[in-house]
Amino acid sequence: MAFEPLPSGSRIGILGGGQLGRMLALAAARLGMRCHVYEPAADPCAAHVVERVTRAEYDDVAALRAFANSVDVITYEFENVPLAAIDAIADIAPVRPGRRALETAQDRLAEKDFLRATGLATAPYALVEDAATLDDALAEIGAPSILKTRRLGYDGKGQARIMALPDAAAAWKSMSGAPSVLEGFIDFKCEISVIAARGGDGSVVAFDPGENVHMDGILHTTTVPAAIKASTAQDAVLIAGRILNALDYVGVIGVELFVTRGGLVVNEFAPRVHNSGHWTQDSCLIDQFEQHVRAICGWPLGDGARHSDAVMTNLLGDDILGAADMRGTAVHVYGKPDPRPGRKMGHATLITPRG
Amino acid sequence: MAFEPLPSGSRIGILGGGQLGRMLALAAARLGMRCHVYEPAADPCAAHVVERVTRAEYDDVAALRAFANSVDVITYEFENVPLAAIDAIADIAPVRPGRRALETAQDRLAEKDFLRATGLATAPYALVEDAATLDDALAEIGAPSILKTRRLGYDGKGQARIMALPDAAAAWKSMSGAPSVLEGFIDFKCEISVIAARGGDGSVVAFDPGENVHMDGILHTTTVPAAIKASTAQDAVLIAGRILNALDYVGVIGVELFVTRGGLVVNEFAPRVHNSGHWTQDSCLIDQFEQHVRAICGWPLGDGARHSDAVMTNLLGDDILGAADMRGTAVHVYGKPDPRPGRKMGHATLITPRG
Repeated sequence: MAFEPLPSGSRIGILGGGQLGRMLALAAARLGMRCHVYEPAADPCAAHVVERVTRAEYDDVAALRAFANSVDVITYEFENVPLAAIDAIADIAPVRPGRRALETAQDRLAEKDFLRATGLATAPYALVEDAATLDDALAEIGAPSILKTRRLGYDGKGQARIMALPDAAAAWKSMSGAPSVLEGFIDFKCEISVIAARGGDGSVVAFDPGENVHMDGILHTTTVPAAIKASTAQDAVLIAGRILNALDYVGVIGVELFVTRGGLVVNEFAPRVHNSGHWTQDSCLIDQFEQHVRAICGWPLGDGARHSDAVMTNLLGDDILGAADMRGTAVHVYGKPDPRPGRKMGHATLITPRG
Repeated sequence: MAFEPLPSGSRIGILGGGQLGRMLALAAARLGMRCHVYEPAADPCAAHVVERVTRAEYDDVAALRAFANSVDVITYEFENVPLAAIDAIADIAPVRPGRRALETAQDRLAEKDFLRATGLATAPYALVEDAATLDDALAEIGAPSILKTRRLGYDGKGQARIMALPDAAAAWKSMSGAPSVLEGFIDFKCEISVIAARGGDGSVVAFDPGENVHMDGILHTTTVPAAIKASTAQDAVLIAGRILNALDYVGVIGVELFVTRGGLVVNEFAPRVHNSGHWTQDSCLIDQFEQHVRAICGWPLGDGARHSDAVMTNLLGDDILGAADMRGTAVHVYGKPDPRPGRKMGHATLITPRG
């Protein structure tokens, strides 16, 4: 499946114009690539740093095909791109990572089934389609547990905790009838994530695992190295590699794992660059964004060794200038025009010499 | 002279659309700024990464003023911006670094006079306006020496060596009648450069001095740290600081110095980010480009401490993919459409742990 590398000056199409698309475009520019962003919303923040922008919906086949015809390779910055949009353009330009990763990651049930079939540990889970199947699922999995919509969940949205059986009715109601998955609670010591990449030639590299802390369902900090045993870090990287190979993946993936007494349990993966990998911009020679661009362009994967330890903190309406004035700290601002409470406006990374 | 910091989302106007403008724009994007490039040439490589481009000549006052009215601050990526262009827009938006740095750096004679007046050592020099004044200058300075045009020289262009007196006529002829400066040869151990920045509040920071090797008049490599004594490195930084303060400068400057037995001799300075500072992208948390953007936007200057040692090599038609495949190496490609012999197409930086 190896393919010829795209030369510098090639065009990359990016589906989605948020901060991940923006940082992908900045990395692509370092390699001399030109980017074209496709985004339905007005004034996406990725538009400020690319040569070309198409504003159109994901069901606008004519716009999608014109976009695809203008580029040499297509990627996406978020996992909820409609599959029909991919199917409308895949005959024109290669879409990397492929359709299969997208299809699997868009559906919590398919994702869990895939992970199990790949021989990886997940939380116990069961499909919930109505109040009756929720009762069945609770009988099997018990409480505490967590109900999540099968599709379109992110940053803790579309989730309801069931601490005890009487919470079940309210939890199901909050799903608004959407097909869901009940997951058993995992008693974990910490959550880590592995950002890994697979190249067009099947080679796999991974960044050092980071330890994640969430606040209100949104990633707050990622600390690298994670406070885990070396063997656990090694296992985590191997798990990411198994997922990449099983999906015949090209590009960067973010894999979230729980560290438990019984070993690692896969929470979920995102078929894209990942918030918990932003620390790589300041602590690694080649960051997750450039690694993704290298992979989808058929370039050799870069040296992602960590030269410094890192603590990445998301900035949600925080004092950007204050963070910029701190020793050892780099800020990355997304250029979103309208700050809203809880909206990710940027992040700050504190680096320190490797411990 | 302190001024209020520009918030993220502000507009930066960049005069010049080459690779320095491109890398300034990429750094500005990290801080959430939007860029508008002004460039007379078609398809400048900085245009691929900015929100807006004006293609117009530097004597097009209407275009210049419209450009200035669209931005919050103006900077330049090369020192040969006509002063008349600056004068046409300075009442609309602040131009940083200021007019004085530009005026001084554009004229070798004014630059040398300024350096002497600031108490800094330079090569012996004399103004040459015709064959007779060249004879006088040679009588004073002797040979070997080097004749350079007063204006518009870069990368070794507009220069002629005079190894012995009989070379004088040919050297003067090669200047095509342009007013020139004769400089005495300096017997130097090595050439170093200091990339330093001065903020809107007058604070000064500097990156570690790098050691430069040229090939055919063009910078070939910069190695950091330079193989010089700690006291020499300290002296070099202090000299850069004196120049910045004397010019009441805001932004990044590149100062080239010769290391001689008698101490440091200033060769020249560039009132802008500098090729010999490209290593900072991969070896420092905050690089020269971001430091310049922070300075002209009134932000606090960042932490430019070196986390890794570096060797930066310019790529002139070299094998970019080969460089990208080397361990510890990052490549930066400028996206110029037409490679030509001797044209800078990108650079590669090899980083190693601090020695």
